[in-house]
Amino acid sequence: MRKIAILGSTGSIGTQTLQIVEEQQDIEVTAIAAGRNIKLLEKQIRKFHPKLVAVWKEESAKELKNAIKDMPNVRITYGMEGLIEVATFEKTEILVTAIVGMLGILPTIEAIKAGKDIALANKETLVCAGHIIMPLAAKLGVKILPVDSEHSAIFQSLNGERHNHIAKIHLTASGGPFRGKSRDELKTIQLEDALNHPNWVMGKKVTIDSSTLVNKGLEVMEAHWLFGVDADKINVVVHPQSVIHSMVEYEDGAVIAQLGTADMRLPIQYALYYPARRPLSGERVDFFRLKELTFEAPDLEVFSGLKMAFEALKKGGNVPTVFNAANEVAVAKFLKKEISYLQITEMIQKAISEITYMQDPTVEQILQTESMVRELLR
Amino acid sequence: MRKIAILGSTGSIGTQTLQIVEEQQDIEVTAIAAGRNIKLLEKQIRKFHPKLVAVWKEESAKELKNAIKDMPNVRITYGMEGLIEVATFEKTEILVTAIVGMLGILPTIEAIKAGKDIALANKETLVCAGHIIMPLAAKLGVKILPVDSEHSAIFQSLNGERHNHIAKIHLTASGGPFRGKSRDELKTIQLEDALNHPNWVMGKKVTIDSSTLVNKGLEVMEAHWLFGVDADKINVVVHPQSVIHSMVEYEDGAVIAQLGTADMRLPIQYALYYPARRPLSGERVDFFRLKELTFEAPDLEVFSGLKMAFEALKKGGNVPTVFNAANEVAVAKFLKKEISYLQITEMIQKAISEITYMQDPTVEQILQTESMVRELLR
Repeated sequence: MRKIAILGSTGSIGTQTLQIVEEQQDIEVTAIAAGRNIKLLEKQIRKFHPKLVAVWKEESAKELKNAIKDMPNVRITYGMEGLIEVATFEKTEILVTAIVGMLGILPTIEAIKAGKDIALANKETLVCAGHIIMPLAAKLGVKILPVDSEHSAIFQSLNGERHNHIAKIHLTASGGPFRGKSRDELKTIQLEDALNHPNWVMGKKVTIDSSTLVNKGLEVMEAHWLFGVDADKINVVVHPQSVIHSMVEYEDGAVIAQLGTADMRLPIQYALYYPARRPLSGERVDFFRLKELTFEAPDLEVFSGLKMAFEALKKGGNVPTVFNAANEVAVAKFLKKEISYLQITEMIQKAISEITYMQDPTVEQILQTESMVRELLR
Repeated sequence: MRKIAILGSTGSIGTQTLQIVEEQQDIEVTAIAAGRNIKLLEKQIRKFHPKLVAVWKEESAKELKNAIKDMPNVRITYGMEGLIEVATFEKTEILVTAIVGMLGILPTIEAIKAGKDIALANKETLVCAGHIIMPLAAKLGVKILPVDSEHSAIFQSLNGERHNHIAKIHLTASGGPFRGKSRDELKTIQLEDALNHPNWVMGKKVTIDSSTLVNKGLEVMEAHWLFGVDADKINVVVHPQSVIHSMVEYEDGAVIAQLGTADMRLPIQYALYYPARRPLSGERVDFFRLKELTFEAPDLEVFSGLKMAFEALKKGGNVPTVFNAANEVAVAKFLKKEISYLQITEMIQKAISEITYMQDPTVEQILQTESMVRELLR
């Protein structure tokens, strides 16, 4: 039995992780943490029998305790302390960090210190704290297994090649629903337009981020840390069919790619069983039906979020944190219809130019930077 | 220094192998063999200083001896004995079998017995004698390193995955110059049309074989032996841009592909340094310039050679040898304008239906089958 814990069990990645647990039958779920969806959490507890469960708020913990009072062996905890308890739970071998936001950074660090391999689905961990996480994981021999479809594709394309030099990473992007539009046309984008992603069904925040290509920018930063590749060797390729999930080009010119359907269960399962593959139900790529794959360069003037992401990565320090935190604030406002679509990137720009630069920030300084951004953009 | 010998040093693969030797500077060419191009062979001897050289005919050996009488340390030999001497030359580590035809089978077997790794560019070896070669190589711990671009792509896509099950091999094919044509339109094909391959510059024989898809059929058979995959798990995908050089689909639905430009030096170099990659000069795939990749099913009624190849592989025994030998005879006749284009596959069909079936043939029976086919189709 493989023993896993999940931070964010009720979200998109969390629920799909549990689908794999159900399908594979040889994974034990030791501990789970979730935010506010207590109803679903209760169902998950009854089905997967974790020994420890964390929620964010004390009231939710009380509500949950009440709901499962017939299960006295399940310990319920809450807050950051609760998240860290789940992340470091003794019996766990792999921690799936499917929680959204900077909240994920501290528990991930604690899990690494406790020797857990990380199935990484929390973007902020590497975007903001890659300079802390990667050396720590390397020092302790902990595996960082990417769960994102693009990074998993790169990870798979590096199989048996880790002794070879990477010439370039081709990070593919669907281009989102606004591919081909001019900056002027983006002015009138409404929330409903932006929530309509062509290829993937995801949470609202990441759907908006995909439409602005800010998501791709965050992925560029993650790729930098995961694979030790500089910004100028990361090539974003708009590939609207999303069949090639990303590629690695080597020194000899060979390009290794991973292709697949739009099914997040594949990268999740791959991370859980790496380097083994297991049968997985579901559709397969049908080359005769898909007919063509196309490629184009991203328009960095229209999708300035991606351009700023490259710049933030090159600046380093706390700038990626500023980029990410400002985007979080802005997208939250856009989801509440408080700002226009183009104001998302404007807010990021403002935060980057106004927040004080810190080189090599500690976790405390990263979180402090986040607070400063929230303060600034309030 | 890596020590290599080459069977077929003056051909397309042979000369490109020597280009890599020149570029890399850490490969020693111990022995080479060639057929009739004595002028080029002399140049190669003067440049690469092999200790042993074989030619096919005794007269050629005399001619060569005379040409390099100022180099008394180069031993010159000829005939099948000469080929085998080159193949088993003591100091060699890797034998590049770039010779064309069934001639390659015996020297390859002797090289394996002598513990040489094989950089395999001779199709006939596995098509006719895969059932002898693969178990022998496995028993003696000898590597069979494919040099063909498609098989190299599959080999590269299996990197770090050899413990995982292959669900399917997607063998790509350019479709050749007659893709989309009807059987009727093939009736009037002239030699000049068939020699005009859209993507690769190759020898005449293989260019014709590419146009009939017989070449792809031979590759299906090779893939079967190289990767231990049954005919029904090998999917030929017509992909006219020849950018994806082939793919492996795993049990979880993940497809790993190798992409590249049409440069045979890449698979040759890969075989020589496997599992290491080395920088290689030349063009790179430019995703923004290529714009689209397309895929379609091969038309097995028009390209009946491919259909017959699948059938020959399923029948096994000496049938693949019959298929290959009949094609050799027919293509030679077509190159001499003695038969029409469609008669190539008709001759293959005739040979398969008339030559006596042998199960599990020995090398002698394989060569005997070849003679019978030549006799029949004379």
